[in-house]
Amino acid sequence: MKVGDRHFRSLWADAPRARVHIIDQTRLPYAFETRALSTLEETAEAIRAMRVRGAPLIGVAAAFGVALALERDNSDAGLKRAVATLKATRPTAVNLAWALGRVEQKLLALKPLKRTEAAWTEAQAIADEDVALNEAIGRHGAKLIEKLYLKLKRPVNVLTHCNAGWIATVDWGTVTAPLYMAHDQKVPVHVWVDETRPRNQGLLTAWELASHGVPHTLITDNAGGHLMQRGQVDLVLVGADRVTRHGDVCNKIGTYLKALAAQANGIPFYACVPTPTIDWSITDALAQIPIEERAPEEVRIVRGLDVHGVPSEVAIASPATPVANPAFDVTPAEFVTGLITEKGVFKASERDLIVLWPKSHRDQAYLT
Amino acid sequence: MKVGDRHFRSLWADAPRARVHIIDQTRLPYAFETRALSTLEETAEAIRAMRVRGAPLIGVAAAFGVALALERDNSDAGLKRAVATLKATRPTAVNLAWALGRVEQKLLALKPLKRTEAAWTEAQAIADEDVALNEAIGRHGAKLIEKLYLKLKRPVNVLTHCNAGWIATVDWGTVTAPLYMAHDQKVPVHVWVDETRPRNQGLLTAWELASHGVPHTLITDNAGGHLMQRGQVDLVLVGADRVTRHGDVCNKIGTYLKALAAQANGIPFYACVPTPTIDWSITDALAQIPIEERAPEEVRIVRGLDVHGVPSEVAIASPATPVANPAFDVTPAEFVTGLITEKGVFKASERDLIVLWPKSHRDQAYLT
Repeated sequence: MKVGDRHFRSLWADAPRARVHIIDQTRLPYAFETRALSTLEETAEAIRAMRVRGAPLIGVAAAFGVALALERDNSDAGLKRAVATLKATRPTAVNLAWALGRVEQKLLALKPLKRTEAAWTEAQAIADEDVALNEAIGRHGAKLIEKLYLKLKRPVNVLTHCNAGWIATVDWGTVTAPLYMAHDQKVPVHVWVDETRPRNQGLLTAWELASHGVPHTLITDNAGGHLMQRGQVDLVLVGADRVTRHGDVCNKIGTYLKALAAQANGIPFYACVPTPTIDWSITDALAQIPIEERAPEEVRIVRGLDVHGVPSEVAIASPATPVANPAFDVTPAEFVTGLITEKGVFKASERDLIVLWPKSHRDQAYLT
Repeated sequence: MKVGDRHFRSLWADAPRARVHIIDQTRLPYAFETRALSTLEETAEAIRAMRVRGAPLIGVAAAFGVALALERDNSDAGLKRAVATLKATRPTAVNLAWALGRVEQKLLALKPLKRTEAAWTEAQAIADEDVALNEAIGRHGAKLIEKLYLKLKRPVNVLTHCNAGWIATVDWGTVTAPLYMAHDQKVPVHVWVDETRPRNQGLLTAWELASHGVPHTLITDNAGGHLMQRGQVDLVLVGADRVTRHGDVCNKIGTYLKALAAQANGIPFYACVPTPTIDWSITDALAQIPIEERAPEEVRIVRGLDVHGVPSEVAIASPATPVANPAFDVTPAEFVTGLITEKGVFKASERDLIVLWPKSHRDQAYLT
C-alpha cells in the first residue's frame, strides 16, 4: 500500500535475479527504512531478527532467500542447506515451512542449471498469490463496508485489534484489505485502532493507516466496549491465527472481549481470513488449540521513543512482579458473525463452512 | 496496610497538633517515600501535585490542611482562606469539597481559640470514619471470598481492574479491603491485576499487594476474558466512581468488558462501594453520567524506569496520531451481580438498593 505518495509492497525484487528489498519492520512505527538482501545469510538474519514478520510475509521472504542462495550454489546440497538454514530461523512458523517445502519440491525436480531461474519465478509466484488472496478478501470485505455506508449515510466506524495489515503480508493485509479498498473507492471509513497490549501491534496498524491516508484513531484496549455501547462502532474486523471448522476464531489476546461487546451491542463481528487459515482438524477449539504463554518481559517492558526521539524502553514493572502473558484467545463461533475469505463471506458455522473443505478432508469428514 | 513489616496508613499525624505525614504517591510504584506536611501550602501542593490521590484520601488530607493552617491563623479570614486554597487544588473533586464543607461548618461555629484543637479532632474523625467504612466493606467482601474458598477448596482467584486500594483511601481500600482481610484471615486468595491502560493504575495495585504479601499476577487488560473462559477467575471485584440507584456502575474504562466476560462465563462480578458513592439522582446512567475524555498524552506516553532504573517515559505514538481517551465506562446493572457496601451486600437493582436510600431522598422517591 502507500507510504506517502509511493506504493510499496512489504518485499520486492527490484529486477529479476537481483537483490530483494524489505521494509525493516524492527524500525516501525518510528522509522520507515528499507533494506536490501543479497544473500541467504542476510535473508535468514532478516527473518530471525523479525525485520520481516507476519506468517505470509516470512514464507515469501524465505522463498526469495532460496533464490538468492542458488545464485551462489545451485547444487542439491546448496539447495538443501538453504532450505534448512531458512527453516531454522522461526522453527514454529507453519507458513515458513510450507513455502520452503513448496519451493524445495519444485526445484529438486529440476537440473541445477535450471533451478535458479525457477526459484525466482516460484518465489515471485508465492508473493503474487498472497497479494491476490488478500485482494480478494478486500473485495468481499469492502462490499460489507459499502453496504453499511449506504445504510448509515455517514463514515463507517470499524474497530480492529492487533495488526493484520499489509506489512504482515506482501500487500493489502487481511483485515486492512477491506479498509484500504473501501477507502480507495471513496467509501468514507474511520478505524478505531486497539493499542493491543502487550506488544502494541496497534501502533503498526496506526502507522499503516496514516501512511495510506485512512482516517483512524488510536485507543487503549479498554475503550472498545464503551465505544460500542455508545454507537460509535459499526463493524469489528479482526484477523485470525487459526479458525476451526466450526468457525471458532483463535486470534490475538483480547479479541474475545471485543467479540463479547460486539454481540452485546448488536454490532457485526467478522474475522478476515484466507481459507488456508481454517484448520479442519480442530473439533474443540478450547481443548485443542494450545495458547502460547509468552515472556513476561513483553508486559513489563514498553518500547517507544525517549524525550530525544531515540528508540528506547521503560520497565513498567520490576522483574519481581509476577506476570502472566497469554498471547492468544479463542472467540467461540457464536460470537462471530462471519468469516471474510478470498472465496466470499461465510457464516461462522460448520454447516456454512463445509463448502470450503478441501476434497481430501471432506472424504473422511463428518458433521459434529 | 503493610509495607514490608510495618503497618501504614496513607496519611497520619505523628502526634496531636504536629506534622502530617503522607506517602508520596507520585513516586509509586517505583519508590516508597513518605513526606511531612507542616503548612497549608505544603498540603495544597501535595494535593495539587497528586502526591495524595483518590477521592477519600484527598478529602482527609484537605481536612488536615485546615488544621495546619489554623495553627498559624485561627481567625474567620484565616479559616476561609485555608478552605478556599484547598478547594482550588482539585476543583472537580466532590469528596474534597464535602470534607472541607464539613470542617468549615463545624469550625465557624466555634470561637477562634477553640478552633485549632477542634480542627485536628475533626480531621482525624474523617480519617477514622473512612477507615471504618472500608473495613466494613472488607468484612462483607471477605465473607464472599471465604464462601468461595470453602466451595472450591483451593485458592480463590479474584480479578480486579484499576486501583481501588488502600493508598487511594486512608487504609484498607474498597476493592482491596476484602482481599487484605481474606488474606489476613488465612483464606488463600490470588489476585489477577489488570494493568489498566492508559494510566496503568494496576501497577499501584500490584505494588500494594506485593507490599502486604498478597499473591498476585499482573496481566494486560486483554487477558481477563481468556482467563475467565478457562476457569481461572472465580470472582471479579471492581471499584466505582459512581453507582446509580438502579445499580449501574460507572468505573474506570475497561470495566464493562470484564463484566461482559464475567457474565458470559458465569463468574460473579461485584462493585465494592461505600454507600455515599450511590448517586440517587441518576435515573439513566448512559444519558446522565458524562464520560470524561482525558488528554491523549495519557495514551501516547508510558512511564516506567529506564535501563538505569531512573523514572522515565517513552512516547509509543507521535503527537500526529489521533487518540481517543475516554476515562470511564458504564456497566449496566444487568451485568453486575451485586454491590459490596459498608452496610452489607446488595443486588444491583433499585428494588434491593432502596433500603439504602437516605431518608431525604426516599421521601420524594419513586421506583422507575
